[in-house]
Amino acid sequence: MTSKKLSYGEYLQLGNILDSQNLQSAQKEHLVHDEMLFIIIHQTYELWFKQILHELDSVIDMFRDNYVQEENTGIVISRLGRIIEIQKLLIDQVGILETMTPMDFLEFRDLLSPASGFQSVQFREIENKLGMDAKQRIRFGKQSYDKYLDSDDRSKVLKSEKNPSLFILLENWLERTPFLQFEGFNFWNSYQIAVEEMINTDINRISSNPTLDDSARQASLKNYESIRKTYEALFDKKKYNKLIKNGHRKLSQKATLGALFIQLYRDEPILQLPHQLLTQLVDIDHLLTSWRYRHSLLVFRMIGIKIGTGGSAGHGYLKKTVEKHSIFGDLSNLSTYIIPRSSLPKLPEELKKQLGFYYTYGK
Amino acid sequence: MTSKKLSYGEYLQLGNILDSQNLQSAQKEHLVHDEMLFIIIHQTYELWFKQILHELDSVIDMFRDNYVQEENTGIVISRLGRIIEIQKLLIDQVGILETMTPMDFLEFRDLLSPASGFQSVQFREIENKLGMDAKQRIRFGKQSYDKYLDSDDRSKVLKSEKNPSLFILLENWLERTPFLQFEGFNFWNSYQIAVEEMINTDINRISSNPTLDDSARQASLKNYESIRKTYEALFDKKKYNKLIKNGHRKLSQKATLGALFIQLYRDEPILQLPHQLLTQLVDIDHLLTSWRYRHSLLVFRMIGIKIGTGGSAGHGYLKKTVEKHSIFGDLSNLSTYIIPRSSLPKLPEELKKQLGFYYTYGK
Amino acid sequence: MTSKKLSYGEYLQLGNILDSQNLQSAQKEHLVHDEMLFIIIHQTYELWFKQILHELDSVIDMFRDNYVQEENTGIVISRLGRIIEIQKLLIDQVGILETMTPMDFLEFRDLLSPASGFQSVQFREIENKLGMDAKQRIRFGKQSYDKYLDSDDRSKVLKSEKNPSLFILLENWLERTPFLQFEGFNFWNSYQIAVEEMINTDINRISSNPTLDDSARQASLKNYESIRKTYEALFDKKKYNKLIKNGHRKLSQKATLGALFIQLYRDEPILQLPHQLLTQLVDIDHLLTSWRYRHSLLVFRMIGIKIGTGGSAGHGYLKKTVEKHSIFGDLSNLSTYIIPRSSLPKLPEELKKQLGFYYTYGK
Amino acid sequence: MTSKKLSYGEYLQLGNILDSQNLQSAQKEHLVHDEMLFIIIHQTYELWFKQILHELDSVIDMFRDNYVQEENTGIVISRLGRIIEIQKLLIDQVGILETMTPMDFLEFRDLLSPASGFQSVQFREIENKLGMDAKQRIRFGKQSYDKYLDSDDRSKVLKSEKNPSLFILLENWLERTPFLQFEGFNFWNSYQIAVEEMINTDINRISSNPTLDDSARQASLKNYESIRKTYEALFDKKKYNKLIKNGHRKLSQKATLGALFIQLYRDEPILQLPHQLLTQLVDIDHLLTSWRYRHSLLVFRMIGIKIGTGGSAGHGYLKKTVEKHSIFGDLSNLSTYIIPRSSLPKLPEELKKQLGFYYTYGK
Repeated sequence: MTSKKLSYGEYLQLGNILDSQNLQSAQKEHLVHDEMLFIIIHQTYELWFKQILHELDSVIDMFRDNYVQEENTGIVISRLGRIIEIQKLLIDQVGILETMTPMDFLEFRDLLSPASGFQSVQFREIENKLGMDAKQRIRFGKQSYDKYLDSDDRSKVLKSEKNPSLFILLENWLERTPFLQFEGFNFWNSYQIAVEEMINTDINRISSNPTLDDSARQASLKNYESIRKTYEALFDKKKYNKLIKNGHRKLSQKATLGALFIQLYRDEPILQLPHQLLTQLVDIDHLLTSWRYRHSLLVFRMIGIKIGTGGSAGHGYLKKTVEKHSIFGDLSNLSTYIIPRSSLPKLPEELKKQLGFYYTYGK
Repeated sequence: MTSKKLSYGEYLQLGNILDSQNLQSAQKEHLVHDEMLFIIIHQTYELWFKQILHELDSVIDMFRDNYVQEENTGIVISRLGRIIEIQKLLIDQVGILETMTPMDFLEFRDLLSPASGFQSVQFREIENKLGMDAKQRIRFGKQSYDKYLDSDDRSKVLKSEKNPSLFILLENWLERTPFLQFEGFNFWNSYQIAVEEMINTDINRISSNPTLDDSARQASLKNYESIRKTYEALFDKKKYNKLIKNGHRKLSQKATLGALFIQLYRDEPILQLPHQLLTQLVDIDHLLTSWRYRHSLLVFRMIGIKIGTGGSAGHGYLKKTVEKHSIFGDLSNLSTYIIPRSSLPKLPEELKKQLGFYYTYGK
Repeated sequence: MTSKKLSYGEYLQLGNILDSQNLQSAQKEHLVHDEMLFIIIHQTYELWFKQILHELDSVIDMFRDNYVQEENTGIVISRLGRIIEIQKLLIDQVGILETMTPMDFLEFRDLLSPASGFQSVQFREIENKLGMDAKQRIRFGKQSYDKYLDSDDRSKVLKSEKNPSLFILLENWLERTPFLQFEGFNFWNSYQIAVEEMINTDINRISSNPTLDDSARQASLKNYESIRKTYEALFDKKKYNKLIKNGHRKLSQKATLGALFIQLYRDEPILQLPHQLLTQLVDIDHLLTSWRYRHSLLVFRMIGIKIGTGGSAGHGYLKKTVEKHSIFGDLSNLSTYIIPRSSLPKLPEELKKQLGFYYTYGK
Repeated sequence: MTSKKLSYGEYLQLGNILDSQNLQSAQKEHLVHDEMLFIIIHQTYELWFKQILHELDSVIDMFRDNYVQEENTGIVISRLGRIIEIQKLLIDQVGILETMTPMDFLEFRDLLSPASGFQSVQFREIENKLGMDAKQRIRFGKQSYDKYLDSDDRSKVLKSEKNPSLFILLENWLERTPFLQFEGFNFWNSYQIAVEEMINTDINRISSNPTLDDSARQASLKNYESIRKTYEALFDKKKYNKLIKNGHRKLSQKATLGALFIQLYRDEPILQLPHQLLTQLVDIDHLLTSWRYRHSLLVFRMIGIKIGTGGSAGHGYLKKTVEKHSIFGDLSNLSTYIIPRSSLPKLPEELKKQLGFYYTYGK
């Protein structure tokens, strides 16, 4: 593009983009009208995946270089905000594919075999870069998920598995939160008392609830025992590491305390954007989960309980991944230990200053 | 309103509507800002539930009086279409409640106890009128769901349980489909051959798939055994009733065949609107399921794994209801037995005429 | 793709699709992060335009071959329904571009010049195939819209201008409605009386409204004079053609009467799907209009009142096209002449039969 | 509610809420099915208006008491964010009313007269509290908008007109921005040079554009003359006040400079939340505008060009208000004067410190 006369079509390379719909049905038998939609909707999904990766990579870079705290937090938040808007669109977009009826899909389904959405490299990269653990993945058959890919794709995916993910970098960043220890600040004691009170109120409510029979009551009380246990572990590194080892938690104890501090004192100037960031990660996780859920409903609607075009997958597999493949679940789960704003221990003057603007306190 | 000068506010009774936000926090301690949102969003949900019941009741009436087939199908479809639009809104509306943080919710959560969304009479009526079985409901504690209601509410809900539901009336209507038996028409034979072929292709694909290990292959093949079984049962009343008895199916064999015929020959004029209707019922079921799912995510986000304000419920219970409380699942599941349009047995001339317009064939 | 081993990436030609993002900023200076979004969102728009054209072409084909009435109406409606779902997505998608701030856009805006969205061939084809008149287009500068295109693109666009559009084919189809004249049926007389009554009630309300001053009253009465005039023209071909000649109407008198008959007697079986079709065309027109509106707001948000990258266009031009470029406005405008269902003249038995199913009346 | 046993229905006062649908058609003739939807959708609109006012009032309170800058900015932003989510819902909600056809609306339209949406007190309060000028309102007839209200409603609305609006408080807050004057900082000079360059590039592009004819070129150049004028006025209080007096601007010169500084240096910690706030106000304004637009389309679809039930209003009036009733247009219009991040004059060290956190600079 040396000339000045850049055109819209050249800029967007529409020659390539609009000439890449190669209907299998057109080649093999007769063109099936609805196959076009099937191709185009998947191509738009992949384009949006590319955009998500573009944003995710830039955010990971900023976290890796330890320059998140200051000027860049605003940029990180606007980029994660963009990912969220894209995710919402991707969920809504499923509705367009639902205008294809099962009968119309069957007309070309067999021609696609053994190609499968299972082979989307970019989707695996998004999962890995966000922080999905290879161990965490639900397996289908003896093979790991990367075995369905050719060698180029496989190495791309495995690379994304090895590089530090957003989850890991966030964990480090949270562990560095400088305000957790503060001279003479008995915050965690007061906090513990407030949580105990909240848990006890709930336990009393369960014990005295006449509508519960014994088995239901026991189940509820057992649940609260586990709440109390994980909550006690918050302040006991050894116990917490055991929870992690058993797969009940992913985020380190120190990072969890950092996240809790941010969520509780989010009104302090220096914590406002970090609070937004943690909320966005919960959003991203829930939207990913919702997308999986919507996808599994779609597949059921399209092929019932039959197998997918890849020879495996199908509705049953997809349904299992919905909750199992959550990444930032520990951040949502903090809600179990949040206390009301009115019970918050007051911060010492000096700490409050540290959390404020120079303009306010620096004079 | 005797005078001519009806005003906007009188017409909508805004005096009542806008004066019914009684914040518990304002009465007991100090007003908590976010409690207003909690009240107003639930009130709008209940208003929309009333509208859904209004549409549902009118559709049930039309079905009950056996006058669906002709002029009214268009009206039935436009009213179910409205329910679908409302359901989409109700799902989106969850996003507004998500602007409330767990910390802000805690500020008034305890004041609401033991009130609980579990007590929404209208929601139970919607479920029952659509066709949820009392036996099907997931129990919490020894009590049935109606025991949480006061006596007026309970009798309302139980009444909606006893009256013929949309599910029952649809079943009767489908059983009356007059085209299932037609002199000399070997449709079901040809259909059976086409399905067998489809199933066999899939089974071959499973057997020869190198990426599956033995246990995965056995699981897939077992799944297809069950597909074959239920499909054979389609043509054997006795076998089908056994599936129903064991909870694998709800819709009668005859009604299922009627629905299948409609979905397969939906292009014939007389079946076009019935096809739209069946598709809408699948939509309504999936949207109800999606709403439950979104709701369970919201609760997790708000209170983690703690109990709900009713002393029970909570995220765990809600998650279980998501799929278990499906009503028209048998209609979605028809996809398992749909064949491509190009394999459809050709209809005999005389039957085609029966499915057409008088204008076309009556001259 | 001769081998059996079709893969997901090959099927979707992801090599092409994901390698067509050529950032101008990367070539000329330094890569501007947000340019990627700008390219990808436009590429997804173009992919969806291709899908809309795919549906539109198939619908036009069905209309051209005169085989719409029967089996295919269901298919036409499901394909227009798909266009509608895509249009809704395209409007929502604007929200993603709004995550780019004006400051970030400026970083690469100058590099795009003189490329402009004005040059989207597919968008022009959609407009033309739906039925936009070349004369109707708002001009910018002395040049017609096609002068901004290179010769290949221009000939494509001009071809789409010349071929019969959906508007033209719909007009023909409506003119062929066989039920407009029916022996001894005085429908149009009864209809005229009902409309007169409705208009007179409104005029009385205007005349006796104390809150209107003279000039407002005169304006309203003048509006009703024009309503009465166009309504009288409905039954007078000469007068109607004058309205068309003066640009007040596009649809022929005969076709308008056909559309009116369908909208009024939409509950009759043979008119139910045609009614859905007319409603869909109103939807498509309004969604196109809404998209233009949303687009003009976006441009204002991005560059204020400055010129677009094409050297022209910009917010002011776009705003003007919003209403001026409507295609099926005559169908929305029918609302002015609709009467309540309860005032509908009763159809003679024999006509009712013609509008029913053979199954009902053919025995 | 003295007892402990608060129930869901009592808490939400469902007795009132669900018993306030008084169908005019049920009283006067026979019940018209669709009137229920008409009532319920308007009631949900009014409930959401109440919620918007609840958030707006609290934000106005915080601004009035001059305590926005610090801890409360996060709260202000989350409350405006909630208003935005509600506005999006209100726009989507129009789609539900569109499931009512013109023919069904006509069945009860006459019974509503002279009640009119024009009489929504809460909507007027929202407009006034946001900052709509009474002078700015498009008049219909000789009467001001409040004359359609009874005396209680009128005094409420007039009160909201008199109290300081969010617009006024925002203006004061922006004028107080402390960083506009800074010793030895030649920011505005460098800025002026960058804008000049940008404008000149555009003017050159217009002058040398071969596709423009003389009249189009003159129009574009004239537009740029006006851009240059308003931009020069930015730095000349006298000239700026003239623009305000002539209705071209609403926001004071000083406040506009404050807003511009925030938008340009939004990456500095102390300006990140103020930048979010300004962006939200643009969003709120555009969503209000979009709602008006969608509403005017709906009315056209329902009654064509006939008058509204209030004897006036209708599509024509509504269309005019769409752009005329914008409130924060001056903030969107800042885009005309934004320069790219890369051209931003560098801030002096001492000023950068003032814009940072105490934690960073206070040690």
